[in-house]
Amino acid sequence: MGHLISVDMGGTTIRAALFQPEGDTPVLTRRTSTAVGPSVEANICKVIRAVWPVGETVAAIGVAAPGPIDGQRGVVFRPPNIPGWDQFPLRQYLEEEFKVMVMVANDANMAAYGEWKNGAGRGYDHLLYLTISTGIGGGIITGGKLLVGAQGMAAELGHVTIDPSGPCCPCGIKGHLEAYASGPSIARYLKEQISSGRSTALARETEITPELIAKAAKKGDKLSIEAFSNAGCALGKALAGFLHIFNPSIIIFGGGVSQSMELFMPALQDSLARHVLSPKYLEGLKLVHAGLGDNTGVTGMMTFLRHNYRGAYAA
Amino acid sequence: MGHLISVDMGGTTIRAALFQPEGDTPVLTRRTSTAVGPSVEANICKVIRAVWPVGETVAAIGVAAPGPIDGQRGVVFRPPNIPGWDQFPLRQYLEEEFKVMVMVANDANMAAYGEWKNGAGRGYDHLLYLTISTGIGGGIITGGKLLVGAQGMAAELGHVTIDPSGPCCPCGIKGHLEAYASGPSIARYLKEQISSGRSTALARETEITPELIAKAAKKGDKLSIEAFSNAGCALGKALAGFLHIFNPSIIIFGGGVSQSMELFMPALQDSLARHVLSPKYLEGLKLVHAGLGDNTGVTGMMTFLRHNYRGAYAA
Repeated sequence: MGHLISVDMGGTTIRAALFQPEGDTPVLTRRTSTAVGPSVEANICKVIRAVWPVGETVAAIGVAAPGPIDGQRGVVFRPPNIPGWDQFPLRQYLEEEFKVMVMVANDANMAAYGEWKNGAGRGYDHLLYLTISTGIGGGIITGGKLLVGAQGMAAELGHVTIDPSGPCCPCGIKGHLEAYASGPSIARYLKEQISSGRSTALARETEITPELIAKAAKKGDKLSIEAFSNAGCALGKALAGFLHIFNPSIIIFGGGVSQSMELFMPALQDSLARHVLSPKYLEGLKLVHAGLGDNTGVTGMMTFLRHNYRGAYAA
Repeated sequence: MGHLISVDMGGTTIRAALFQPEGDTPVLTRRTSTAVGPSVEANICKVIRAVWPVGETVAAIGVAAPGPIDGQRGVVFRPPNIPGWDQFPLRQYLEEEFKVMVMVANDANMAAYGEWKNGAGRGYDHLLYLTISTGIGGGIITGGKLLVGAQGMAAELGHVTIDPSGPCCPCGIKGHLEAYASGPSIARYLKEQISSGRSTALARETEITPELIAKAAKKGDKLSIEAFSNAGCALGKALAGFLHIFNPSIIIFGGGVSQSMELFMPALQDSLARHVLSPKYLEGLKLVHAGLGDNTGVTGMMTFLRHNYRGAYAA
């Protein structure tokens, strides 16, 4: 069996990692911007080439891409955060380019799988993973099995309605969770408040990013704290619904915004407690940060590839 | 192995059915009102005795009860539609009363299981079942497995938020699906419209039931048609979220209100199409009526009992 290459496509960054035939940690990782340059697919090829092992065999490439995705055909639909892609046949494109077997899967599903097998979710067979970043994605382990759905398009947890009169989601529908609690949504909330005349330490910044807001919140800027609380409140409402639907025993938060989870957690827990059908859903429930850090996506994708494609690509 | 007794506890009616050791159809069924008389538990005992086979052995009793339920301990929490029950230890109560093994499970989960094994969902391994009656419950088959959750409290699909400023749900939280589309919610909508001065053929009725509204709607009463459309619109919004979460290939509607599903289906389908993330979720998706009719609950409970308790109660 040859090496494995695992790719994690975020809305902002594409990471690639090289794994030895039996290794669980990447021996080489590279990253590039998602949308800069001629095309997203050219960037994927570039970053795969950057980790390609000279003089060694590559058995397969796994790409974790933003959903929804047709996992069986390896087609990525129209991800709100990847400009220009619509029904993009990523698997076919990469198989023609690199002449090895390619598997395409939902990025948050792969992160959930990785956290379950090797990260913060080890031993939990009813697990909910939420990635909060440029977008919001989800992954579900229920009864010790990854939930994928009939066409592999399940667990799009960012696209459930919090309030139908709420802000517009990048997908075009109003009031989705992603429109309240993703990084750009937190920034939009702050900018709206500035426009309506409220004061903040960030008023003179030309580009307000979630990272800047988190920094200001940690220094005590009230409006920045409120922006994260507003996101936490929406997350609590959505999670109450997810508890009623899945009854998990652990919720794992990944993605860039969750690096600052202490900023949204008080509002989240308060909102969750108010919206849950019975306190029984909260008994013993763990809310934790992802354990695999920046490599959650590539490690999860590699693990899934190894567990599910062995028969197909073993040499 | 002895006979099986299966009980379906609805908010209005309790049904019990007797099954022969190998039979799939009930040889005797009886029903009684849920809340009339000294207590709900006394009514359950009465209806179990009414189907108890004289001179024969009963191997086990299965009770499908409104959720949320702790399936492992057989405890029913505080079902909004069963007055007086709070952490009721139904399994223990019935085992002491009848001296046979008792299994307690969520009613809508059991109906989903029955439809999957013997009804409208045969052959579909990604199935969503929605019962629309006094309350709204759900059951999920995903990847060929019943979704039960860590404590057996999953698939409470009536308790997801449609609009946080919407009407109050019997569970106490505002804007849940159940507060829009259950039988009593459809009746409440009509009564509110009458109170605000709108005209309907039902204006002089003293007790407005979902059945009466359905009858009037079928005769062309505009306000009655609107009441069902209002429910259909909420159902479409909720189902869009469920498609994003589960990506099923079939949705089955059971429960009394779904007898009139043609009245809410146009609004449901319109709303579903407007709220879905990608038309891919609708490709090949079937929306159908439950195939087991009034016996969905008792048959599903019996089938689950037989498949999951055989080792435990086989004599």
